[in-house]
Amino acid sequence: MTHTHGYAAFDPRSPLGPYDFERRTPGPRDVSIEILFCGVCHSDLHTARSEWGGAKYPVVPGHEIVGRVTAVGSEVTRYREGELVGVGCMVDSCQHCAGCDEGLEQYCLNGFTGTYDGIEKETGRTTQGGYSDSVVVDERFVLRIPQGMDPAAAAPLLCAGITTYSPLRRWKVGPGSKVGVVGLGGLGHMAVKLARAMGAEVVLFTTSPGKREDALRLGAHDVVVSRESEQMAAHAASLDLIVNTVAAPHNLDPFLALLKRDGTMVLVGAPAEPHPSPTVFNLILQRRSLAGSLIGGIAETQAMLDFCAEHGIVSDIETIPIQAINDAYERMLKGDVKYRFVIDLGSLKAAA
Amino acid sequence: MTHTHGYAAFDPRSPLGPYDFERRTPGPRDVSIEILFCGVCHSDLHTARSEWGGAKYPVVPGHEIVGRVTAVGSEVTRYREGELVGVGCMVDSCQHCAGCDEGLEQYCLNGFTGTYDGIEKETGRTTQGGYSDSVVVDERFVLRIPQGMDPAAAAPLLCAGITTYSPLRRWKVGPGSKVGVVGLGGLGHMAVKLARAMGAEVVLFTTSPGKREDALRLGAHDVVVSRESEQMAAHAASLDLIVNTVAAPHNLDPFLALLKRDGTMVLVGAPAEPHPSPTVFNLILQRRSLAGSLIGGIAETQAMLDFCAEHGIVSDIETIPIQAINDAYERMLKGDVKYRFVIDLGSLKAAA
Repeated sequence: MTHTHGYAAFDPRSPLGPYDFERRTPGPRDVSIEILFCGVCHSDLHTARSEWGGAKYPVVPGHEIVGRVTAVGSEVTRYREGELVGVGCMVDSCQHCAGCDEGLEQYCLNGFTGTYDGIEKETGRTTQGGYSDSVVVDERFVLRIPQGMDPAAAAPLLCAGITTYSPLRRWKVGPGSKVGVVGLGGLGHMAVKLARAMGAEVVLFTTSPGKREDALRLGAHDVVVSRESEQMAAHAASLDLIVNTVAAPHNLDPFLALLKRDGTMVLVGAPAEPHPSPTVFNLILQRRSLAGSLIGGIAETQAMLDFCAEHGIVSDIETIPIQAINDAYERMLKGDVKYRFVIDLGSLKAAA
Repeated sequence: MTHTHGYAAFDPRSPLGPYDFERRTPGPRDVSIEILFCGVCHSDLHTARSEWGGAKYPVVPGHEIVGRVTAVGSEVTRYREGELVGVGCMVDSCQHCAGCDEGLEQYCLNGFTGTYDGIEKETGRTTQGGYSDSVVVDERFVLRIPQGMDPAAAAPLLCAGITTYSPLRRWKVGPGSKVGVVGLGGLGHMAVKLARAMGAEVVLFTTSPGKREDALRLGAHDVVVSRESEQMAAHAASLDLIVNTVAAPHNLDPFLALLKRDGTMVLVGAPAEPHPSPTVFNLILQRRSLAGSLIGGIAETQAMLDFCAEHGIVSDIETIPIQAINDAYERMLKGDVKYRFVIDLGSLKAAA
């Protein structure tokens, strides 16, 4: 077993604090990874505070992991000691259902194993995430970080990146597409960069007029303050796809009305409370769809990383020491981050 | 001008009664039609009572029209005097937008002209529907009733038929598909027949256990009482498409949960009040979609009629005289019709 230092939530209300635990003894197909960086996703906070219910404490959050391989099992073929690798939201799945068979492990019909707050099949224990100094992962769930990519800024690609890349691919975004992105946070800023790199015309919708310049810098062709009905009307029935990254409940109708015929608004944020019900006429009148999408499969995650490397895309980040995580959560709730906190796990070592 | 006898609603509360009016003078591209039969659609009642708001009284409902050509204009090429023809929900559209260009006049970006309660471009007057003895329609919006098809039972195909046929085609239903149909009314019974004829496995969902035998007779492979959670669970994550024909607000979540990955539930009923908001997780977890669909284009309506002729499909109907229309509305509201009332317009002549 591997003794591991980390930061955990111990109950829904207390701040996160130091927590030591054991990783499983690496098996023949396992990759042992020294964690260098871990992005801070809103899901981490939801789980730390059990906002989706049922969190298993203590829980070490973090599923945007970048690290270096320290050892590989005897049957590992894809990775070698010293390589830079990533781990995203999943560390296992059944490998024999319709989802897994198609490389869509995120839709595993028997339930994938989350990187944290899941149940580790090998041990029956709770999985623990990347706010820690090491992790042991089956090589099938390990990603290769492309050469030359900044490891800290790559970390958020493992969740925020793939969560927005996957629906852009699924709904075939490319040159000629007009794509809306709702919300300019961790997911939204990745959606803007990725959709732009795929050749789409990109419109960013925000409630904050102050985000205009930044959105244009990130790649948006136009920025619409979604409370301004005239600005909204200028894009009526014109969008092929809207990637809605806002997890807080909000009125979907003004956005649905911007879709052209057969257009889709895909929700990638999961609010604890439902959105107000959309008007059926908005769906019927131009045969529009409201859909959801969950992260992405492992093969697709690798394709996303390679796409990002090719197009020089990483996340805009603010690096923090692990000791600042509780402040970071508060700032995240206020939207005070451009656009993803990434924990430098070196800070854990320094304190140990 | 053509003097026309009909039945109209004069205000939202009074019963429908006799109403005489003029049809426009037929133009060179117009087909003059003696109406033989007209189906009774729930939209007729919504409009007669202005339940969607803004009805223009007096209004003659009816958009499931079958009749015989009595005269054609000098430029009409597709129809001749004496032929059996149909008219559905539309009598005109702009003919030059993206929707019309693709033969999807129902999604005309400038708004199609409804068969009743619309604005007739030629005259600026309110269009009046098929609860009447004649109608004048541009040949582009006239359908051919296939030879040998029962004209009364063909009438509901013009709305109930195309409204369910179009989404079945759009979502590529065929052999190997598993299709759910929610509700066994005018639309639902057509959806069952059509999906079955396309080669799909068909599951009918109803709140009425008494509809089981009838649903099986109509072509369903299985019938599920949607309030029985065990029966529902037997189809979890197994359906490719659900055609939801229920216009009354109801909980969509139990049905969304029956869709397999990438499945779609398409709403074809338009409730005056919204459905309760669906749970976002139900969309995200298997990348499901909630969509809407509106009737169908003219070319597609002809294809549907030809498909029905080929497969021996018509609507199950109960024929009524026009004088029984107000009773029919009350029975329709109680679900007491198998499965569509069709007015025999001969009854209008007899009374005149």
